[in-house]
Amino acid sequence: MILHPAFRVEPWALHETELRLDILAQSESLFALSNGHVGLRGNLDEGDPHGLPGSYLNGFYELRALPYAEAGYGFPESGQTLMNVPNGKLIRLLVDDEPLDVRYGRLRTHDRVLDFRAGTLSRRAEWTSPAGRTVAVTSVRLVSFTHRSIAAICYEVAPVDRPASIVLQSELVANEQLPTSAVDPRAGASLDWPLAREDGSCSEAAGLLVYRTKRSGLCVATAMEHVVVGSPRVHVASELATDSARVSVADVLQPGERLRLVKLVAYGWSSERTVPALRDQVAAALEAARIAGWEGLLADQRRYLDDFWSRADVAIEGDAELQQAVRFALFHVLQAAARAERRAIPAKGLTGTGYDGHSFWDSETFILPVLTHTLPAAAGDALRWRHGTLPIARDRARELHLAGAAFPWRTIHGEECSGYWPAGTAAFHVNADIADAALRYVDATGDSGFERDVGVEILVETARLWRSLGHHDVHGAFRIDGVTGPDEYSAVADNNVYTNLMARRNLLGAADACVRHPGKARELGVSPEETADWRAASEHVFVPRDSSLGVHQQAEGFTTHEVWDFAGTRPDQYPLMLHFPYFDLYRKQVVKQPDLVLAMQLCSDAFTPDEKSRNFDYYERITVRDSSLSACTQAVLAAETGHLRLALDYVAEAALIDLQDLEHNARDGLHIASLAGTWIAVVSGFGGMRDHGGALSFAPRLPEGLTGLSFTIVRRGLRLCVSVSAAAATYRLLDPQGVLELVHHGEQLTLQGMTPVERATPTAPQRERPEQPPGRAPRRRSSRRG
Amino acid sequence: MILHPAFRVEPWALHETELRLDILAQSESLFALSNGHVGLRGNLDEGDPHGLPGSYLNGFYELRALPYAEAGYGFPESGQTLMNVPNGKLIRLLVDDEPLDVRYGRLRTHDRVLDFRAGTLSRRAEWTSPAGRTVAVTSVRLVSFTHRSIAAICYEVAPVDRPASIVLQSELVANEQLPTSAVDPRAGASLDWPLAREDGSCSEAAGLLVYRTKRSGLCVATAMEHVVVGSPRVHVASELATDSARVSVADVLQPGERLRLVKLVAYGWSSERTVPALRDQVAAALEAARIAGWEGLLADQRRYLDDFWSRADVAIEGDAELQQAVRFALFHVLQAAARAERRAIPAKGLTGTGYDGHSFWDSETFILPVLTHTLPAAAGDALRWRHGTLPIARDRARELHLAGAAFPWRTIHGEECSGYWPAGTAAFHVNADIADAALRYVDATGDSGFERDVGVEILVETARLWRSLGHHDVHGAFRIDGVTGPDEYSAVADNNVYTNLMARRNLLGAADACVRHPGKARELGVSPEETADWRAASEHVFVPRDSSLGVHQQAEGFTTHEVWDFAGTRPDQYPLMLHFPYFDLYRKQVVKQPDLVLAMQLCSDAFTPDEKSRNFDYYERITVRDSSLSACTQAVLAAETGHLRLALDYVAEAALIDLQDLEHNARDGLHIASLAGTWIAVVSGFGGMRDHGGALSFAPRLPEGLTGLSFTIVRRGLRLCVSVSAAAATYRLLDPQGVLELVHHGEQLTLQGMTPVERATPTAPQRERPEQPPGRAPRRRSSRRG
Repeated sequence: MILHPAFRVEPWALHETELRLDILAQSESLFALSNGHVGLRGNLDEGDPHGLPGSYLNGFYELRALPYAEAGYGFPESGQTLMNVPNGKLIRLLVDDEPLDVRYGRLRTHDRVLDFRAGTLSRRAEWTSPAGRTVAVTSVRLVSFTHRSIAAICYEVAPVDRPASIVLQSELVANEQLPTSAVDPRAGASLDWPLAREDGSCSEAAGLLVYRTKRSGLCVATAMEHVVVGSPRVHVASELATDSARVSVADVLQPGERLRLVKLVAYGWSSERTVPALRDQVAAALEAARIAGWEGLLADQRRYLDDFWSRADVAIEGDAELQQAVRFALFHVLQAAARAERRAIPAKGLTGTGYDGHSFWDSETFILPVLTHTLPAAAGDALRWRHGTLPIARDRARELHLAGAAFPWRTIHGEECSGYWPAGTAAFHVNADIADAALRYVDATGDSGFERDVGVEILVETARLWRSLGHHDVHGAFRIDGVTGPDEYSAVADNNVYTNLMARRNLLGAADACVRHPGKARELGVSPEETADWRAASEHVFVPRDSSLGVHQQAEGFTTHEVWDFAGTRPDQYPLMLHFPYFDLYRKQVVKQPDLVLAMQLCSDAFTPDEKSRNFDYYERITVRDSSLSACTQAVLAAETGHLRLALDYVAEAALIDLQDLEHNARDGLHIASLAGTWIAVVSGFGGMRDHGGALSFAPRLPEGLTGLSFTIVRRGLRLCVSVSAAAATYRLLDPQGVLELVHHGEQLTLQGMTPVERATPTAPQRERPEQPPGRAPRRRSSRRG
Repeated sequence: MILHPAFRVEPWALHETELRLDILAQSESLFALSNGHVGLRGNLDEGDPHGLPGSYLNGFYELRALPYAEAGYGFPESGQTLMNVPNGKLIRLLVDDEPLDVRYGRLRTHDRVLDFRAGTLSRRAEWTSPAGRTVAVTSVRLVSFTHRSIAAICYEVAPVDRPASIVLQSELVANEQLPTSAVDPRAGASLDWPLAREDGSCSEAAGLLVYRTKRSGLCVATAMEHVVVGSPRVHVASELATDSARVSVADVLQPGERLRLVKLVAYGWSSERTVPALRDQVAAALEAARIAGWEGLLADQRRYLDDFWSRADVAIEGDAELQQAVRFALFHVLQAAARAERRAIPAKGLTGTGYDGHSFWDSETFILPVLTHTLPAAAGDALRWRHGTLPIARDRARELHLAGAAFPWRTIHGEECSGYWPAGTAAFHVNADIADAALRYVDATGDSGFERDVGVEILVETARLWRSLGHHDVHGAFRIDGVTGPDEYSAVADNNVYTNLMARRNLLGAADACVRHPGKARELGVSPEETADWRAASEHVFVPRDSSLGVHQQAEGFTTHEVWDFAGTRPDQYPLMLHFPYFDLYRKQVVKQPDLVLAMQLCSDAFTPDEKSRNFDYYERITVRDSSLSACTQAVLAAETGHLRLALDYVAEAALIDLQDLEHNARDGLHIASLAGTWIAVVSGFGGMRDHGGALSFAPRLPEGLTGLSFTIVRRGLRLCVSVSAAAATYRLLDPQGVLELVHHGEQLTLQGMTPVERATPTAPQRERPEQPPGRAPRRRSSRRG
């Protein structure tokens, strides 16, 4: 899409210079604003036309029944779906009684900018009404990083040539009519029951709506306030109607005059608090925002982002498109997580209702590595959310007759919402993913208090789960049968290598954490016998290999399966899951998304370089990348095994997944994990960063086409900047006080203070580029990356 | 239940001497009448009280949406559910205006007999109304084997001591209110939309109702006619009301007088014919029944059954209870199949709505072996039904991207109705089961015309399916990955031995049939290359074994799985599927129903005696018999491996599954396949009958407790009677012209004419009785088998 002439390649912004109605829904996702608590899709100010109107609050969901043609024990009966809350961003404009609707009259100019440093979405348009009146409209919208409940819009309109009668209708609208949902199961369910009104009021330039969901019983309050600057003739009135509160501003403007409306919107929700309490909460938030004022909100926003970029920026030389895409990705990851604060980080952030607004393993495996190294507090909060759901996860484990805790495959609130267990409940690896994220977070931050209060319990309860899921066979091997790994084109298989290796780390990590926190361990009832049992299991985890092929088996027996008939599969039959039955996908060698290859990234120390190289070659041939969680992982292993050009292609694919709508579902929201994967692909791929077992290591290497790369990460509270050129890498702390140990291509280095250390980068081995299934090579870009 | 004092042990009848309301629904199933086309549950004549009112027509179904929490490619969107058609068996009695309802007044005597030789359900009752009037009521009900559309009831009432005013209301009632369905997924779905009326009429003693289903568009006509014999004062009237047609007969009777009502009911349904055509069809059926008259219908019924028993009886000496149970079983198998005529034989026959009235592999694997050897025409018809659904099965195969035809796991009309694919669509063995039934039918009947017209196409299309399901690995082995065998506590496994061996037979059988019918093969586009390919696959079918344990693996890797924690499973946690998640059942060694053991029965020639013995021992320890399709198979292999006492226990369990309501769901209908399995257990177990590869063999052996066994089967049009005592077996043809080759314990015998041949039976080897999981040994009977 940024290849589309409507979009410009810029280093610090997403810039659209033309409004294309055919990609309206996609652009609403791309231009979405969020702070992780409040999310607003990039709908046009005036509401119509739209692809999908959307205003979301993290954690605000409705329940829906999960039906089954044939039910079974333990199938969840109820699912959770992210709700569209009252739309507070709506500002309708009427020019001489004609509503601004870009489908009518003439849109003379259009320009929208999502500014990654300002944290705003700006719009400039000039529109001539069907009756021939021309107005210039500008709006700047933000969802505040510093005021968690607040969104704000500064809207200005001015007649261009002749006087015009102007009316602005600034509204809160509940129960918006939503387009009927797509057939694609990856889209969210659309609920056809609305929110129920609990309260509503309005005064001169303000309005309030309070609604409650009918099944989940959650209550949401939305309030707005305005500052109006117009001509002396300006008139303001308000009205409460069914499902809306409206403030109308009428004025008659001469050329040269303008009407300016600053709209402040506050959201609050709760499952427990009373309506009056919620009402007061949003009033207080508005009050604080009013004191800050529009300019104050803008300044706070920029300060917050300056700070973020100083810790997190990735600068790429030689590929302007990739540079833009990487910053776009980081900006949206930040938006998804910044103020989530002990709520889940959904797979789509708050940019759409795809996947019902659920959070998956994506969060821990793809998003948290980025946050851990750029915004550690947000990573800690996300893990605290998981920790808070432990009682639910323990109940689920008990229901499944397992020990410890079984975290859900997909959820908003914590309960399992997966309605297809072979690719849901059976994907137990989510538990090891969470444990792994906790281990890496503690390693990166050195936050021992967090480990004691949060980490140990997560580790212990998941270790108990693994111990009860696996068993020792007669030869002593510890086997985990009948589970599903990351690759959803296999399911319910024995001894999935990814799962087994991650479970091993989980078991060992739990045992080690119990040694560091004996009090906490005692509190959790962990005995030395139990940790010894975990260690024994972890030492004997079974890892299946195919000795005749000389590769690992993704799961036991995998390489004996028939290879998918790639030659006989038409391009329009991808993604395969929409055109072939699961049973056929499951029993053949075809990989939706890296599974063994992800194991080689996350458990890098469990494979020799030669094994990595052979395995990568083997699995490349059968991996179709029908999941957006593919390219980033393949990029990392391609880089590690010396296929730098291939790695660059994968990095670009991960980075452009939404910007070019490669999955054809950006309309439902952005792929936050894939965007986070862009950072992983660059930092762990070309930067070669690994963080196993308490050691931080790099093995930087640039592909042809990139002339430079530099990125900053945070470790143990210190900012480390890594700059890579074709020949060398420079490591430098950005904080004067500090010492950091790291490894460069196997060499141990110590950084002290801000003194840079430079080392040469060895050249990559020359290897033949591995082949992908026909038609499934990463897309090569045409284009403007100069 | 026949252990209940309300039931008597009799050799040729099911006899209830007391009405127990707590087992009313179960008794309605036990006393059901059917000819395979029309089925009437054994509801009381007066309709109330009832457990589940039921009148069914084979193939008459409604469609219902199959919902999925997460849909997938190839999941069926629509299911079929057996519909309750208008109730024609209803005859209400009012005595001095008080309705006969056994819950009120006093039921002085009650006696019901299902007579296996008469083919009738008789009832005698004496009832005193709340007002103190006593009447004697007798009714005899039949569903005619000879008049396919006809049911008839002879109802008589007489005052016992004082005069009484009597009113009989004989009705047809549509859209009966049904009890809400149970939670158990094995019960049928209850539809809450009724039939829509198309036509209705009544005249003096007759009535007609025509209804149409709303979604499937099927039309059903029900007509009744009466012959009334009463006092000179008798008065007859009729009335058409919403959803009913009623004929009222009023009389005032003195002691010694009686009122007699013969009710003839005709059913007809069609998806295509017009309402007038259906109306005429039931009128014609009534006309024919009227000409036969009640006595004629009774006589025809007895003649039909005399003929059946002369071909099919199993006589057991030394166990009166088992004798009764075996005849009960055979009678219900006959009822399920006799006049099904190119419609499916449902798992529950026409005795209830369990499993939605669907037909499964049960039909070919358990019911057809009985019919093939006792009522071959019905077996042929059932296979012709399957053959008629080949176009649907081809479409399904195409949808699944497979070659040939994929028959449905469960269906009424032919379309796949399984809403849970791991234990539905993936259970491809149903295709080999159908092919195997066709092969054995041709072998038993020698019907070459059938083979040409029906058999070859079934064999070829299923062989093509197998060829496309399997693949040769690098070592040349032919593997079938990711399918589900008979044991539903495993699913989606590689190289299930049962499936692989049955597929082998299917592939070979198809190749051989093409040699015998080259014209037909050409017509089906079968080339010599294709049959050679089938033979190559069949010769290299992979059969996994565990060499260290010295047993076969139910599926590849099965014996490496953890053994289920039987000791930790409480008795109330069976059946396991209602208390444990599938994923846990699937990944452990626990067997719902024989799978490998069934392979050893049906592919007996693929195992050595030692393998059978070792395998049987191994799998006995992990088989929980949570399916009614278990005991009969275990009986056969227990007998073959010398565990005769255990075999007898299993035979009894199979025989008593419904009579003692061992599965606690007899209320939803009888387990026809398990009842058929009783015959298999006796004939293939104690008779040791096998019919592999064109040869008929016996290896009879009686367990302690049985003093004699004799059974008759039909082979190549000849009736063969086998009589077994403790010491010897006698083989005798019952037809004077004929020659039959058979094998007795390995010795080749030739029977000529009616000359009996007697041979000694070797004694069984002494082996230790294998153990079942704790609490899962076959129930030992207490009781009255003297």
